[in-house]
Amino acid sequence: MVQRSDEQHAEKMKKKQAAHDKIMAGKTIEKGLLIVHTGKGKGKTTAALGMVVRAIGHGKKVGVVQFVKGAMTTGEKVVFDAFPDNVEFKPMGEGFTWNTQDRARDIALAREAWEEVKRMVADPAYDMVLADELNIVLRYDYLPLDEVLDVLTARGEMKHVLVTGRNAPEALMEAADLVTEMTLVKHPFRSGVKAQAGIEF
Amino acid sequence: MVQRSDEQHAEKMKKKQAAHDKIMAGKTIEKGLLIVHTGKGKGKTTAALGMVVRAIGHGKKVGVVQFVKGAMTTGEKVVFDAFPDNVEFKPMGEGFTWNTQDRARDIALAREAWEEVKRMVADPAYDMVLADELNIVLRYDYLPLDEVLDVLTARGEMKHVLVTGRNAPEALMEAADLVTEMTLVKHPFRSGVKAQAGIEF
Repeated sequence: MVQRSDEQHAEKMKKKQAAHDKIMAGKTIEKGLLIVHTGKGKGKTTAALGMVVRAIGHGKKVGVVQFVKGAMTTGEKVVFDAFPDNVEFKPMGEGFTWNTQDRARDIALAREAWEEVKRMVADPAYDMVLADELNIVLRYDYLPLDEVLDVLTARGEMKHVLVTGRNAPEALMEAADLVTEMTLVKHPFRSGVKAQAGIEF
Repeated sequence: MVQRSDEQHAEKMKKKQAAHDKIMAGKTIEKGLLIVHTGKGKGKTTAALGMVVRAIGHGKKVGVVQFVKGAMTTGEKVVFDAFPDNVEFKPMGEGFTWNTQDRARDIALAREAWEEVKRMVADPAYDMVLADELNIVLRYDYLPLDEVLDVLTARGEMKHVLVTGRNAPEALMEAADLVTEMTLVKHPFRSGVKAQAGIEF
């Protein structure tokens, strides 16, 4: 990139800061957000997990419901266990859906997990609720989208809800305050690298 | 979406599982990955933080160096502090670079942070090293890209290194095993919502 003198640099940074300060001064609303992480890339669940960790660090109470990854061993559980007053973890799903091949059972499990989310969304004690891989369940029509939207949009004013999974329904993204798409640029699986502790699970 | 019978569903899921099993069987390599999170969307640092949490949960030792966010209060520090044997956290940067307007000072701070990363990358005791917002520092030419690439590509075979920040240099993405771009689809800042505990920090 172009080299600049120290004076030019200081001037540029000063302008940047002024612009930044002006933008931040206009941001005064505090409210619970509906956040969606979607896309084919990695980091959807992991970024939600990072938000859970931040919330824990601020002494908030978080409910975590995993819709389809319950059968996997996860490193995060150890960390959640260290903060039993802050995190309630419900690993409801039993492996990815294509492991079961039993639609009725999958639908029953999805319903069970969803009832947990509903309870946590309705209970003011929870500051944040993570519905992990809910998008997958919606994709397979295991839950009625209308019911999910009704519950999530009627949540308490200060409650944050995070929904992850590829193929987020359009209507959910419309209803959301923040949508991030994780895009895969390069993936080690392509070159034969297997899933590893601390990275994939 | 199209409604399918239970039999069709079971058949489809069976095929999916067979395809999935076949792919996974070919993945036998275990190696330390160079992972880059870039793009203008949210979740770059947060997803890296999620990986750190998973690694902690698996009893691994992780070094975390923050290049430009040291001045922010973060929820993750509370969580890191609960696992002092697993995490070494070095918040080296003092606020975003445009707060300082002093190029020489910024370069000195970047160098100081980078020396910590180098030490952790060289020390076999660390399983994972997170160089948070290193891309920003590279973008401003505060560190020589060649030196950074030399150190990161010469890391131990089993060491994971995570680099975050928008505008990742092309050469770094080329050298990486896994690159995820976080794309902003919808952001609450646009509608006047301020940064909130557990979400932004």
